[in-house]
Amino acid sequence: MAAPVYILGGYQTDFARNWMKDGGDIVALMKESVVEGLAATGIDAKEVEVAHVGNFAAELYCKQGHLGGFMAEIDPAMSGIPTSRHEAACASGSVSMMMAGAEIEAGRYNLALVLGVEQMKTVDPATGGDFLGTAAWYDQEAKGVEFPFPKLFGRLGDEYEKRFGLKDEHLARIAEINFSNARRNPKAQTRGWFTNETQNLSSGKYANPVAGRLKVRDCSQVTDGAVSLFLASESFARTYAARRGLKLEQLPRILGWGHRTAPMRFDSKVAESKNNPYVLPHTRQAIVDSFRRAGIADVWGVQGIETHDCFTTSEYMAIDHFGMTKPGEGWKAVEEGVIEFGGKLPINASGGLIGGGHPVGATGVRQALDAGNQVMGKAGDYQIEGAKKIATLNIGGSGTTTVAMVIGA
Amino acid sequence: MAAPVYILGGYQTDFARNWMKDGGDIVALMKESVVEGLAATGIDAKEVEVAHVGNFAAELYCKQGHLGGFMAEIDPAMSGIPTSRHEAACASGSVSMMMAGAEIEAGRYNLALVLGVEQMKTVDPATGGDFLGTAAWYDQEAKGVEFPFPKLFGRLGDEYEKRFGLKDEHLARIAEINFSNARRNPKAQTRGWFTNETQNLSSGKYANPVAGRLKVRDCSQVTDGAVSLFLASESFARTYAARRGLKLEQLPRILGWGHRTAPMRFDSKVAESKNNPYVLPHTRQAIVDSFRRAGIADVWGVQGIETHDCFTTSEYMAIDHFGMTKPGEGWKAVEEGVIEFGGKLPINASGGLIGGGHPVGATGVRQALDAGNQVMGKAGDYQIEGAKKIATLNIGGSGTTTVAMVIGA
Repeated sequence: MAAPVYILGGYQTDFARNWMKDGGDIVALMKESVVEGLAATGIDAKEVEVAHVGNFAAELYCKQGHLGGFMAEIDPAMSGIPTSRHEAACASGSVSMMMAGAEIEAGRYNLALVLGVEQMKTVDPATGGDFLGTAAWYDQEAKGVEFPFPKLFGRLGDEYEKRFGLKDEHLARIAEINFSNARRNPKAQTRGWFTNETQNLSSGKYANPVAGRLKVRDCSQVTDGAVSLFLASESFARTYAARRGLKLEQLPRILGWGHRTAPMRFDSKVAESKNNPYVLPHTRQAIVDSFRRAGIADVWGVQGIETHDCFTTSEYMAIDHFGMTKPGEGWKAVEEGVIEFGGKLPINASGGLIGGGHPVGATGVRQALDAGNQVMGKAGDYQIEGAKKIATLNIGGSGTTTVAMVIGA
Repeated sequence: MAAPVYILGGYQTDFARNWMKDGGDIVALMKESVVEGLAATGIDAKEVEVAHVGNFAAELYCKQGHLGGFMAEIDPAMSGIPTSRHEAACASGSVSMMMAGAEIEAGRYNLALVLGVEQMKTVDPATGGDFLGTAAWYDQEAKGVEFPFPKLFGRLGDEYEKRFGLKDEHLARIAEINFSNARRNPKAQTRGWFTNETQNLSSGKYANPVAGRLKVRDCSQVTDGAVSLFLASESFARTYAARRGLKLEQLPRILGWGHRTAPMRFDSKVAESKNNPYVLPHTRQAIVDSFRRAGIADVWGVQGIETHDCFTTSEYMAIDHFGMTKPGEGWKAVEEGVIEFGGKLPINASGGLIGGGHPVGATGVRQALDAGNQVMGKAGDYQIEGAKKIATLNIGGSGTTTVAMVIGA
């Protein structure tokens, strides 16, 4: 039985903000999330023993590596603490949490700062899309391809169509729910994009094709964002809880996790899963691993899900991979309203990546912060009633690296 | 007391090889180190439970991120195992070992593959030097600067001169020892560069200035390289030892480590250490931490050191920071022959970075592989007689992230 890892809280920057326009660089972006995270939790910078940064590709977007080196610049009280940066494409945030958690479980530290960050609005969309291609096998899947990732996740939809059938209306509904949820989230990128919830996603600019079967409305948007999250050992969490007038049992923790990596190429994934009931069996396995470690029998042991809807097809995939329906029958959960806010098992009450925004390296940390807030009853207008446990799913590449967690008190 | 982490061995590619000239990409480079590492240790790919990649900036040098995603392509038996990539500039290799070690200590896995890799001969030297600038604060210390890192480590020499005095002849001697040691190492980049050991480093092309006080001979060379290393829990190590006809006690392990991160800017480092006896106090602290965890009183408890001589000034710094002399008196250890091969405490029997080559993300893993080989008596022509414990020091940026280890049986 691993030592418990508690989530004390943190801070998400406004994902609607363009930092370059405001004159802010990635160090300023990181700094805001840490300074505000310390304020939000009442933690003193001097108490932070180690820092882990989750980031995909600041080398490309910001011409800056070695992000762990900025902690002393962010707060001089952190000068000297050990730091490192972790990357697994769009799963970088969760991987940084996994590493912080491992060091706490190993007894090395009692309080870790996890900082997920990406500043992406530094380049034009075509260049940014090309940079994202380095999350796939660039030479084989992305070189010279316009917007490689919409194409790869369009192919995920094609695979569903081939194996089980897939209707466009179900993808449109997934987009609609995420955009609609985002309007309740004051940090969501698209919160002001629609004048009303009934905006038609089947025509107009949101229905313009992007790649393959995917339209504008099917795609999450890149943006700038940073999220800080403080993870703690039981001993620190106990002190922290007392300081805040809480019981230790009220604090959320990582109840279980799963971490799996499939072959890089989408072709290889499809070939490998040919005779498997699941299109992405390693993603399924990561979810099952997280349930097993959390001691829950199935997905109905959680009250909400924050999933990686980089595209509507990845959320569609998540529905059956989480076991909400039999493989290929995700459309039932969509039609029956199960995944809606107020439904039996809401997905992405926050707006997810499509509604909330997807600053790549920050996403996994943002999911965990949202999950922790839900468990603490602090999710504001997007609070899920009775949330005790929330599942998260963070995916890097075309389903390559998957990290799933169950977070609860 | 943390659970022990054993080093079972691994494989270093030939650091003299230019992979692009041979038509090999970074995936091929990674693959060779893993395939040969499995062969060298007799480990079956099916036994590997998790993989950690140490890499600085493949996004820039190779237009490829998400290196952890290639494990299944390297060997299909590794499909599904959890993977991630870790970065702290030139300390990326050691940081990946730290993370693999944390997961083993936490009881998550019994056998981890650590893979340090960098392919750098893909770009011209000026571009490569600019890319390396992202290991410092690029906008403030490297933008528009030709070869920023030789300048920054030249300033480290300037700081020594200012505080204690520093003679060029001592730097030249450090270079000479590293080049000389490299000739005994069949994997070293410069092993064929000199016709004899008495090559004059005070005149000729090796004395040409690069930046500030540093000359060609003071600088490690970028190159292409990958190093695999297998880390194991006690239970796996016990089985492995039996399989090889060894006792568990004969296998090297990470006896102690230190990990510290100083402020990013070199200016900030110097300002912070103004009244400290050590020029880089966080580096000193990491070394002290590693000794404390290893249960040794001082540097004389080890029989050899593999240190991060990215430049002769960083090795000069290491001499007093390891405590071989009082601060500022490193020249004594140089003059007295202490650090020579066959001396009282040899530094970089392998040739280090200056003689052996510096494929950035691979360096920390290479140091640990060399240390493990020394302890096992398997270092061939550069074996240190009676080596029981070896200290390593791996540094990212201008002394920003430091990881020190003591490896021994």
